[in-house]
Amino acid sequence: MNGAEALLRTASASGIEVCFANPGTTEMPLVAALDRGAGVRAVLALFEGVCTGAADGYGRMLGRPALTLLHLGPGFANGIANLHNARRAHTPIVNVIGDHATWHLAADAPLTSDIVSLANPVSGWVRSVRRAEDVAGDTAAAIEASLAAPGCVATLIVPADCQWEESPGAAAPVRRTAPAAVSGDRIDRAARALRAGDAAILLGGIALRGAGLRAAARARAATGARLLHDVFVARLERGRDLPAIERLPYFPEQAIGALAGLRTLVLAGTHDPVSFFGYPNVPSRLAPEACERIVLAAPDEDVVGALEALADALGASRELAANTAAARPGLPSGALDVATLGQTLAALQPEDAIVVDESATSGAVWFAQAGSAPRHTVLGLTGGAIGQGLPTAVGAAIACPDRKVIALQADGSGMYTAQALWTMARESLDVVVVVCANRAYRILQIEVARAGIAEPGPAARSLTDLTHPTLDWCAIARGLGVPAVRAEDAASFAKALADALAEPGPALIEAVLA
Amino acid sequence: MNGAEALLRTASASGIEVCFANPGTTEMPLVAALDRGAGVRAVLALFEGVCTGAADGYGRMLGRPALTLLHLGPGFANGIANLHNARRAHTPIVNVIGDHATWHLAADAPLTSDIVSLANPVSGWVRSVRRAEDVAGDTAAAIEASLAAPGCVATLIVPADCQWEESPGAAAPVRRTAPAAVSGDRIDRAARALRAGDAAILLGGIALRGAGLRAAARARAATGARLLHDVFVARLERGRDLPAIERLPYFPEQAIGALAGLRTLVLAGTHDPVSFFGYPNVPSRLAPEACERIVLAAPDEDVVGALEALADALGASRELAANTAAARPGLPSGALDVATLGQTLAALQPEDAIVVDESATSGAVWFAQAGSAPRHTVLGLTGGAIGQGLPTAVGAAIACPDRKVIALQADGSGMYTAQALWTMARESLDVVVVVCANRAYRILQIEVARAGIAEPGPAARSLTDLTHPTLDWCAIARGLGVPAVRAEDAASFAKALADALAEPGPALIEAVLA
Repeated sequence: MNGAEALLRTASASGIEVCFANPGTTEMPLVAALDRGAGVRAVLALFEGVCTGAADGYGRMLGRPALTLLHLGPGFANGIANLHNARRAHTPIVNVIGDHATWHLAADAPLTSDIVSLANPVSGWVRSVRRAEDVAGDTAAAIEASLAAPGCVATLIVPADCQWEESPGAAAPVRRTAPAAVSGDRIDRAARALRAGDAAILLGGIALRGAGLRAAARARAATGARLLHDVFVARLERGRDLPAIERLPYFPEQAIGALAGLRTLVLAGTHDPVSFFGYPNVPSRLAPEACERIVLAAPDEDVVGALEALADALGASRELAANTAAARPGLPSGALDVATLGQTLAALQPEDAIVVDESATSGAVWFAQAGSAPRHTVLGLTGGAIGQGLPTAVGAAIACPDRKVIALQADGSGMYTAQALWTMARESLDVVVVVCANRAYRILQIEVARAGIAEPGPAARSLTDLTHPTLDWCAIARGLGVPAVRAEDAASFAKALADALAEPGPALIEAVLA
Repeated sequence: MNGAEALLRTASASGIEVCFANPGTTEMPLVAALDRGAGVRAVLALFEGVCTGAADGYGRMLGRPALTLLHLGPGFANGIANLHNARRAHTPIVNVIGDHATWHLAADAPLTSDIVSLANPVSGWVRSVRRAEDVAGDTAAAIEASLAAPGCVATLIVPADCQWEESPGAAAPVRRTAPAAVSGDRIDRAARALRAGDAAILLGGIALRGAGLRAAARARAATGARLLHDVFVARLERGRDLPAIERLPYFPEQAIGALAGLRTLVLAGTHDPVSFFGYPNVPSRLAPEACERIVLAAPDEDVVGALEALADALGASRELAANTAAARPGLPSGALDVATLGQTLAALQPEDAIVVDESATSGAVWFAQAGSAPRHTVLGLTGGAIGQGLPTAVGAAIACPDRKVIALQADGSGMYTAQALWTMARESLDVVVVVCANRAYRILQIEVARAGIAEPGPAARSLTDLTHPTLDWCAIARGLGVPAVRAEDAASFAKALADALAEPGPALIEAVLA
């Protein structure tokens, strides 16, 4: 067995099933080893940002890592933006980067670069393999690091000679360790604060799924505390059968308003909320200065257990009142805009859909209305690095082949990693892509106005405008193998969406927004 | 004047005219300042790798930097692969990266990351601005660094508050300094080695343009020394009116064969040649162990002056014999393959064309035959980071609007940064893109075979195959605003190429290779 086989067999033994790959010459032994029965499925992407975003979507859905297979420093670099999002989402991922043979590094061949320096900013764990006999152990260490609560990006650099040389074999399977329990003192302190009133719990990470949401809602029922979540979530379970919680607004002035008057903010699986960007005369921290922050459970602790203990400590009933969200909306007619697009999607999205939300300015209405839709999962743009939506949809669809994936995709962001459409076609993934075609970097047009520029000049207009030429998303999708239709009013969008949801396999709808 | 204006006015005063931009919120003051008369033209790209590749093409053609304008760590990361190529090409580039306001960094907002760690591997110079009053001086220092011979990538990180706060104004124009002259001892030593026979000069960098090539050819005429260049060149001037020199082969076994028997290798503007990748039982260094390496001039020295001094020291005639390359080929007929494609392009390429060569396995015949074409410039894949061709063509076309740019583009590589087509359309750039559609990562299929895998399994086949689905480059191009045609035999390719060359503005030909 060579080092490449030892790597893949170690991964497989620890439950890794998928490798999102864009390999090159320095990964050839690993490519060959994929054919030697290790049981790891290789999925090709035409760009590395698709591989890393797919691994992010996969890891968010299954809670265990996929591999990526990337080509030296520049290939890895193409995947950094989506790894940045994965880092913020605490997604378990194991990146495997082929490097030059150890003895070839000194030659400083054209593709040589400092991979560790590139990997550190997006990785919780980085290691370069030194000898073929270390590959299995180093792989196991990478998997273990990726699985440590709450999950992290682990990056393993494997020189080509360590792949092709003989190696003693696979390492033992890696077992996940349980996150640390939270002390009773912390529970009691949070309980006292909630009872004192003017309090909220900010939920993040694992707290945003069924068990965490229900425990938090019990605490809410017992105390009147508000429940909030960050604007961008790694994974949020939503729908009529789950307790509804408030989303923090995106712009800091509004978020500060939403948190005004709080005396206590209890943090469960997330951090003290901060402004996405810094603006003149706006503080970084969104909750009032006088508001006490209480960490019920940090992201690496047993967040759900802490919320359940909190609800019990509060003497909360185990029965929850029904979600009182408004009835699911009906289908609108008229022009297609963010309101009718959002309403239509909320009206039609099927039970158990996974919605990958990179809608930027086009998704707020959908988000507001989808609380009344059947149970679904939302995957958000945790790190703000755009180009995440389509790749993450690839990974979610491979992780959950029995669920419909809907990529609610801003057009500007979608252009960063549109290559993901090709992988959707190749793998026949059950993804409906809704491109919100406002034909602008609309958020930047808003930021231009926020910066006090009442009448943008030619550069500010040009740098935020996506016409001249207008992107033809249907042509791009067909070029990449995905069938596509354009919708220009609400009725045609509803028909296109219903049709796409009724068919298996990928489809794209270019929703041209008024 | 705020910091953003001070930056742009400093750049403009030092001769910077273009900014390849994909900005976000942290660059808004710079976007606004572009409209305040600094004289820097903003060119939008839909992906940062297009910005950095364009700056590379621009800098290679003009020898002075463009700016890039990129959004924090993840935006910069998307540009790293092409900056890796630029670093290897010694291209002057000044990256401007907006960062969070200095006081907002501690909040660790979602887009916060270690930008310096990302920038170091591809930058010869990196600095983070600390105060608005430093912006102008830091910008001047970045430009000066980028221009120091032989040129380098300089990266300036500018927090948003340093852009929007008041600043004392622009810095004085930066002047380029001449590269260091080479000592007479070095000239004499190289001259003695060449006279002794079995010698070659390996030329790189600035030596591969008219003056350097002519000086080297004089030395060749006087001594019989061979003249060689690296397989991947930053910029090579070629054609019937210039001395022809040998290209080193790509695969190490062939390159070792080409250099066998040399007693001396004189290096002029480049380094001791090494294998692109390390392979079992193949040395990294390509010239014989016993071959003496003599550095006539390092890349940061006066390489052309050294070659001229060498020719003079050898008593070489100032008259050069005419290039004895074969006559320019005629147009072939029959199937379209790498031979007929190459022959057709060599037959039709116009005087003064700039050929951006990211053809991978599809361009060798063209390269061999184009030596007999009229004078032209070749821009090659210096760092091996694919996705360079289309962006570099954008930059070359903006640098040289009076010259025809031909992007000879492998299909697999082209998919990394196809967004460049949109910028070609928006800016009406005079670029003819020839997609060499072999519908495979052909070089990797060769590498699979080189790795001894006679019968690739499903993974090795799948990871090197670009069918299922077949990319429709014409649809993709039209979706991005570029007119496109498909050619499937030599005659239709010749017609499509002649038509495209006759028209201004961008055009794409999908050359489906047999």
